[in-house]
Amino acid sequence: VSSGRPITFTRGVPPADSFPVDEVVECADTILRLDPAVLLQYGKSTGYQPLREWIAQANGRAVDDVLISNGSLQILDFIGTALLSDNDVVFVEAPTYDRAITTFRRHRARVVGIPLQNDGVDIAAFEQALRREVPRLVYIIADFQNPSGATTSATKRRRLVELAQEYDFWIIEDAPYRHLRYYGEPQPTLLSLGPQRVLQLSSFSKQISPGMRLGYVIAPAEIISRLARIAEDTYISPTMPSEGIVYEYCRRGYLERNLPRLLALYRPKLEATLASLRRELPEASFMTPEGGYFVGVNLPIAVSGKELAARAAKVSLVLTDGDGFFPEKPAQAFVRIPFCGITVPEIEEGVARLAQVYRELTK
Amino acid sequence: VSSGRPITFTRGVPPADSFPVDEVVECADTILRLDPAVLLQYGKSTGYQPLREWIAQANGRAVDDVLISNGSLQILDFIGTALLSDNDVVFVEAPTYDRAITTFRRHRARVVGIPLQNDGVDIAAFEQALRREVPRLVYIIADFQNPSGATTSATKRRRLVELAQEYDFWIIEDAPYRHLRYYGEPQPTLLSLGPQRVLQLSSFSKQISPGMRLGYVIAPAEIISRLARIAEDTYISPTMPSEGIVYEYCRRGYLERNLPRLLALYRPKLEATLASLRRELPEASFMTPEGGYFVGVNLPIAVSGKELAARAAKVSLVLTDGDGFFPEKPAQAFVRIPFCGITVPEIEEGVARLAQVYRELTK
Repeated sequence: VSSGRPITFTRGVPPADSFPVDEVVECADTILRLDPAVLLQYGKSTGYQPLREWIAQANGRAVDDVLISNGSLQILDFIGTALLSDNDVVFVEAPTYDRAITTFRRHRARVVGIPLQNDGVDIAAFEQALRREVPRLVYIIADFQNPSGATTSATKRRRLVELAQEYDFWIIEDAPYRHLRYYGEPQPTLLSLGPQRVLQLSSFSKQISPGMRLGYVIAPAEIISRLARIAEDTYISPTMPSEGIVYEYCRRGYLERNLPRLLALYRPKLEATLASLRRELPEASFMTPEGGYFVGVNLPIAVSGKELAARAAKVSLVLTDGDGFFPEKPAQAFVRIPFCGITVPEIEEGVARLAQVYRELTK
Repeated sequence: VSSGRPITFTRGVPPADSFPVDEVVECADTILRLDPAVLLQYGKSTGYQPLREWIAQANGRAVDDVLISNGSLQILDFIGTALLSDNDVVFVEAPTYDRAITTFRRHRARVVGIPLQNDGVDIAAFEQALRREVPRLVYIIADFQNPSGATTSATKRRRLVELAQEYDFWIIEDAPYRHLRYYGEPQPTLLSLGPQRVLQLSSFSKQISPGMRLGYVIAPAEIISRLARIAEDTYISPTMPSEGIVYEYCRRGYLERNLPRLLALYRPKLEATLASLRRELPEASFMTPEGGYFVGVNLPIAVSGKELAARAAKVSLVLTDGDGFFPEKPAQAFVRIPFCGITVPEIEEGVARLAQVYRELTK
């Protein structure tokens, strides 16, 4: 395997050729001329009202149940301010989105990881943990989980919502990848199963453009109004022109047209990732995602994420520290492969380099 | 005085006719076509690099001394996270920007107000307070202060910076109105006098459009890198398309052309405000701002801001609770008149209504 040009298995970013540039320019031109007195002015802390209404309607909810912000991570931070007190407990899947762990800890919460299985969090372990302590929040990425690729089964979704009702905790359902399903049938959202107990985060980052920083949350109106007060205290209102552009993009039906284009772009990349892993790393275990951005790979070696990344760097393979996806250091090495932002040859070459590193470590 | 259509003396917002719509649309079209792979992608937590460079150059600083965010209030929040611990002390001018007080208190700081005079904070009172306790931060709006309109004299600016060096505290210089000078000569910025002790906040809100939510901070590079880490943990990167638009707007020289237009638009409004106050409310005391958005009015009656606002509402004059601009309830009633966003007839009618309310309260 040649170790020529660096190959990057780090951030879950879309490729530049996924950006619908012409349509974005067209929508910017239209909406900035049509509604400048609103889009160039301070907005409401809940976001641009027409986009709020569009999101509410698309999700069968009232407009008061929706808040738009500069990316969904920012909303997670607001949720921390609204709902977490010092030393509150948050349950997360292990592994989970590293920035979510950071956000909860910034709010002085204690983060507890529950092992993740192919079909979602280990419910027996979850219930055992619940008997020890009741969390304030449970953070779940039910569709095409970041970083593992797992999708939570309908049965487990129902059980999680039942437990939320019984033990009185909030579920944060983070759903940025939900619309990127390459195979199989959609499962019901946690939000639809427990609308009074679930705050659903979503985003246009993976559907249009992350640079827009356009995330939103759907939740009971009383939660939304608390988040809106925090949002106003933090930045008065979110950035308006991008909300106008995305609204116009959705209103014209461009989003519906863009999604099949993205599925066609990303599905072969997922297939290449899985095929490369099967071919090059039969020793590894990994899930078979039906959509999304990531395949998480468990390597049967007890090496730290830092050391693995250092070894990989020597063959020009850029990895993040896989340990960061776990609240506590995992027993095995974990590698997240974000396949959307790179090409099929890069995926193949990257997995080959990963296999080379693995074999050097085990020989 | 008729109490017909409501007149709003509340938020410091620009009028819709100040927005350079055609130029903004033109810049959006150009820059989104020119740099989509950067502007539609996740950005750096410090902001769009070309705009960062433009700001650095315009201020004679290194690019590492600049961070751009979604509005300067958001940056004030980051500064709170970076520099404030529980029960730290923050000195502010009394009155000051109400949202700044809220932000410092959210970070569990104790906010101490130092009386404001025509030429800036009362230095004797400031030094007396310093002998009692050394603040971590001192928050100063040196140019056309919000809400009073006061401008800090060069002498006081120098003294503040000397004291910062002597007592080892940080000065936050909030300067969003600095470019809106209708009369007189600019004073040196606190930043230029004490570059190692000052974090200067500024914004394009009052120069182009607040809906863009485009604020920035100029500070020593080690502070910027701490803020950048907090920014990344909060929202990954700020909203990129609006940064591209503003960069293109500045690069083309449109900002230089827009400022004289704004001065011509706002100066008659300031004159109308001062003339109306002299005519209708000779009992009031107020400063004579040389620029900016606000005239702050002290009424010689001991009535709460809430009660004054309730009385004003009866004659369709919408006031904010003036007490909110003070860390501790002021002895006299205080009214902020934000004159830029309303018309001259509205200013005249509004001041007349305020005079009517005042006379009813004192008769």
